[in-house]
Amino acid sequence: MSASTALLTDRYELTMVDAALAAGTAHRRSVFELFARRLSGARRYGVVAGTGRLLEALELFRFTDAELTWLAEEDFLRQETLDWLADFSFSGSIWGYPEGEVFFPGSPLLTVESTFAEGVLLETLALSILNADSAVATAASRMSHAAAGKPIAEMGSRRTGERSAVAAARAAYIAGFSATSNLEAGRSYGIPTMGTAAHSFTLLHDSERDAFAAQVASLGPGTTLLVDTYDIEQGVRNAVDVAGPGLGAVRIDSGDLPVVVGRVRRLLDELGAVDTRITVTNDLDEHTVATLAASPVDSFGVGTSVVVGSGSPTMGMVYKLVARTGDDGAWVPVAKRSAAKASIGGRKGVRRLVSATGTVLSEEVLLHDGAADHLELGHGETAQEVVVPLVIDGVVQSGHTGTAGIAAARERHRLSVAALPPVAMSLTRGDPAVPTLYVE
Amino acid sequence: MSASTALLTDRYELTMVDAALAAGTAHRRSVFELFARRLSGARRYGVVAGTGRLLEALELFRFTDAELTWLAEEDFLRQETLDWLADFSFSGSIWGYPEGEVFFPGSPLLTVESTFAEGVLLETLALSILNADSAVATAASRMSHAAAGKPIAEMGSRRTGERSAVAAARAAYIAGFSATSNLEAGRSYGIPTMGTAAHSFTLLHDSERDAFAAQVASLGPGTTLLVDTYDIEQGVRNAVDVAGPGLGAVRIDSGDLPVVVGRVRRLLDELGAVDTRITVTNDLDEHTVATLAASPVDSFGVGTSVVVGSGSPTMGMVYKLVARTGDDGAWVPVAKRSAAKASIGGRKGVRRLVSATGTVLSEEVLLHDGAADHLELGHGETAQEVVVPLVIDGVVQSGHTGTAGIAAARERHRLSVAALPPVAMSLTRGDPAVPTLYVE
Repeated sequence: MSASTALLTDRYELTMVDAALAAGTAHRRSVFELFARRLSGARRYGVVAGTGRLLEALELFRFTDAELTWLAEEDFLRQETLDWLADFSFSGSIWGYPEGEVFFPGSPLLTVESTFAEGVLLETLALSILNADSAVATAASRMSHAAAGKPIAEMGSRRTGERSAVAAARAAYIAGFSATSNLEAGRSYGIPTMGTAAHSFTLLHDSERDAFAAQVASLGPGTTLLVDTYDIEQGVRNAVDVAGPGLGAVRIDSGDLPVVVGRVRRLLDELGAVDTRITVTNDLDEHTVATLAASPVDSFGVGTSVVVGSGSPTMGMVYKLVARTGDDGAWVPVAKRSAAKASIGGRKGVRRLVSATGTVLSEEVLLHDGAADHLELGHGETAQEVVVPLVIDGVVQSGHTGTAGIAAARERHRLSVAALPPVAMSLTRGDPAVPTLYVE
Repeated sequence: MSASTALLTDRYELTMVDAALAAGTAHRRSVFELFARRLSGARRYGVVAGTGRLLEALELFRFTDAELTWLAEEDFLRQETLDWLADFSFSGSIWGYPEGEVFFPGSPLLTVESTFAEGVLLETLALSILNADSAVATAASRMSHAAAGKPIAEMGSRRTGERSAVAAARAAYIAGFSATSNLEAGRSYGIPTMGTAAHSFTLLHDSERDAFAAQVASLGPGTTLLVDTYDIEQGVRNAVDVAGPGLGAVRIDSGDLPVVVGRVRRLLDELGAVDTRITVTNDLDEHTVATLAASPVDSFGVGTSVVVGSGSPTMGMVYKLVARTGDDGAWVPVAKRSAAKASIGGRKGVRRLVSATGTVLSEEVLLHDGAADHLELGHGETAQEVVVPLVIDGVVQSGHTGTAGIAAARERHRLSVAALPPVAMSLTRGDPAVPTLYVE
């Protein structure tokens, strides 16, 4: 697999560069904004994720000989364009919401200022990464809140593309998950990994007791034994019998969980395994996690639903040209005019209005950059800056990438969610928890 | 990004290997089967995709120094296990449905025979690739059929993870799509790429006419001009005026398409552009494509819905141990016993019953390998073999990977779908088009 990310791109980005170079318009300064017109799934808030991955991908967005040779063979770009691509390295600036931050419809999540050619080239990659990662983080945020402080692990690698699985583990971790089953996410991003055994391990052995004994011999009595291959009650008895009352945990992957969990807890206690934890993993989503949060479950493992965004596998974010210069160098706000997909032209600013007690009141999208100076604030209200510089004149700003970026994003997510009004935590479909106000 | 695929794996696969090696059970011969308990989204048939990618990934499934160093640092495997992993290269055999083939609940899509340790290691990767790619191919198959022979292009890269986008383009192509917007899919898999310009290109220029002139100057009058940035009717007039009546196509990305398309066709004809084609790309799925198939649309571009599986982003396939040997070397059928996720133990065969006129009648899952010999066939019926060898004693069989594999899969898909009964083409939710019969 090529290390270059430059061809993870729609063909039309390159044909536009080709035509604009020929027309002399490629170098017009331009502002693109990345935003979501609405929150997929009628969620109450969105969570930005993928920003750090995008910045890492940006540094690998280079047309090396391998890419240029293939493009030349395909014969749809002029030589001038191939030469321009050969020299390409993004030299513009990007501001945006820091990774982990909450967002609402219209929030300017990324603002890209560069020449048209440089900005348009990033469209596909920026949307791929942010749409996919934010969909996972938005679902994961609801799930981690529903878990009410109990550990919740991501284990959905098998239900999404093998590389998306790694990104999903990262996004879920940012949004409050405690660990992942995915080893590559552990290696690439430093996320804690977890997992002990599947049903196949029990079935491999001549009896459930043999399997438990083999697992305890290798992983120690603090391991988690999967007790529902045959009969859960007998499985729990075998588990405690083999591992002793110091058994770390039992895992339940089937059955009517609220009922089963209560029975297993009583049985463990009867057997003296009062500190043995119960972890459940049976097709959970935010709703079932919420249902179980008050039961004697100690931790959750979520698979399919988190990696596919729990019904909303993509965020529907778009990347739109909102302003560009003319031949005279003056900025011109621009927007598509059609009704259903109308956009608002012109570069936007944003401030978040927060009450005296620290609760978010509204997201103010400022239709003219700098208009925030004129904001009138009510008693005790403050206007918070949300946007941070991510790339300045082609230089990726520090703190957003690598494991440090992930740690910062996780903390940012925690703080941002804590400041939302209580309605944000509703799992029903509805309006955004915070209104987006457009301020002239 | 590492070329090794070995860590695209759940941690528990490795802890199971560790415990089984210590217990002396890791080398028991085992059979794992990969299948879907049901068809996600109540579809009428599924389409297998990802098989070629899995075989390519299998050849890169190696624990190199980089992987072993990280695993050693994580300190959850014994040295014996690390040594075993260092030597690992899959030496077993895999049979399965050829890529592009249709399938039904219970169809044994992959049968993996190897030691337990070798077979269990492949679980996560096999499921990641087949679940994701088959979800796309299953949705794409419905869409390409709905297009009724008109070209249909995949352009959803921005709505899925950046590497899943490449796999999605491949899966859609196998399932009958004609092209993709994704350049990496063009380079990696030889899939035709397409695309000309976005709204931003029109907005970059001082007028729509300037933009069209720039595009035609670069891409020629045979290009596709996007006509709905401002006013569609004026856009069509500008397009023909600038490019001449030899304009290749106009693209419409908004509005009430059945109505708009009719108007645009009449206007193009009035303007003498009788050979100018109309392509539409406005949030299409199989239902809207079907609605438009009889309208004067010449080609379709589908984005979000195909890459996210049109409501079913994953297939829900599972990978289960169904048989293993004991200490005496004799095979033991095994299965989890719990009600909701019950599996049928024992290695299965499969034959497809086909009528005298070539229509598929049923999928016969043979509960004992070889039982097919006893099948009684009705008048004129034939029993087709579906399963082919994919890997024999560690050697990937030819014809399944690379561009040759994709071409074969595309043809296989075409033939398989053509043999389905008419109800298979229903876009409503319902039962599988063909019953799965379990034959003792």
